[in-house]
Amino acid sequence: MYLEDLPIGTRWSAGNFTMTAEEVVDFASRYDPQPMHIDPQAAASGRFGGLIASGWHTAALAMGTLVRARIFGDTAILGLGADQIQWPAPVRPGDVMHVDVEVVGNTPSKSKPDFGVVKIRTIAQNQRDEVVLVMTSNCWVPRRPVGQVPDLPAQSS
Amino acid sequence: MYLEDLPIGTRWSAGNFTMTAEEVVDFASRYDPQPMHIDPQAAASGRFGGLIASGWHTAALAMGTLVRARIFGDTAILGLGADQIQWPAPVRPGDVMHVDVEVVGNTPSKSKPDFGVVKIRTIAQNQRDEVVLVMTSNCWVPRRPVGQVPDLPAQSS
Repeated sequence: MYLEDLPIGTRWSAGNFTMTAEEVVDFASRYDPQPMHIDPQAAASGRFGGLIASGWHTAALAMGTLVRARIFGDTAILGLGADQIQWPAPVRPGDVMHVDVEVVGNTPSKSKPDFGVVKIRTIAQNQRDEVVLVMTSNCWVPRRPVGQVPDLPAQSS
Repeated sequence: MYLEDLPIGTRWSAGNFTMTAEEVVDFASRYDPQPMHIDPQAAASGRFGGLIASGWHTAALAMGTLVRARIFGDTAILGLGADQIQWPAPVRPGDVMHVDVEVVGNTPSKSKPDFGVVKIRTIAQNQRDEVVLVMTSNCWVPRRPVGQVPDLPAQSS
């Protein structure tokens, strides 16, 4: 896919991911070793009343869901960065999230005319439809080579 | 620590983390399974000339570095979200990053007077001092209970 194939408003239902207690602890032991994420007993007596996933873990699982859904087809999902990440509600073991994505920006590069930036907003909601993740990220994608305009009738040369 | 202990301009050198080829592939196989992250041969012939880490992996390792440095002391580093993440340069196996953090915002909550938001900017640079990660995140921290003012002489009651 090229920049031209991803206009603003393009949407995908990218699929689901499930959070397990084992994976909450495993991820956080490496990347976010705080009691609320790695110590079930401490977490039970803490403000959340039990283990919650690291927000980075939720973001990573949402990313994996986008990749496996191949939202850009054969084109890499190459992130330049994110404008925004929000974790409005905690993710707990056993939660099942569904992931929806929408193109909210589409901008040709000024410095590299063969490329552009697709801005996508990813929203993950749990089985109670509570939003647990909102992230808006900027992806670097190629532009359609000059002459390839499949939306128009083929031109004779 | 409380909101009052984390004024704008507070800085930490939080330590280092190292990226290994094994961990690049392991993380990305779960969370970002694209050839540039999981397939050394495909990556070698791709635009980066070799494996690069998922940006989410770099962000997660930077988070782990902040947690292990205990930048907030005994207070949890509880992220509400991030205003910005940038990955200006790729992270490759063998790279060693150093992580610097600075408080760039300090705002009492309007709705919950016992809490506030500390905004921190985290920058990770590799062994060549190239910036590989910039992230600005918002952390929910308690305010100092009324009456506890350790910067002033103890008051008699």
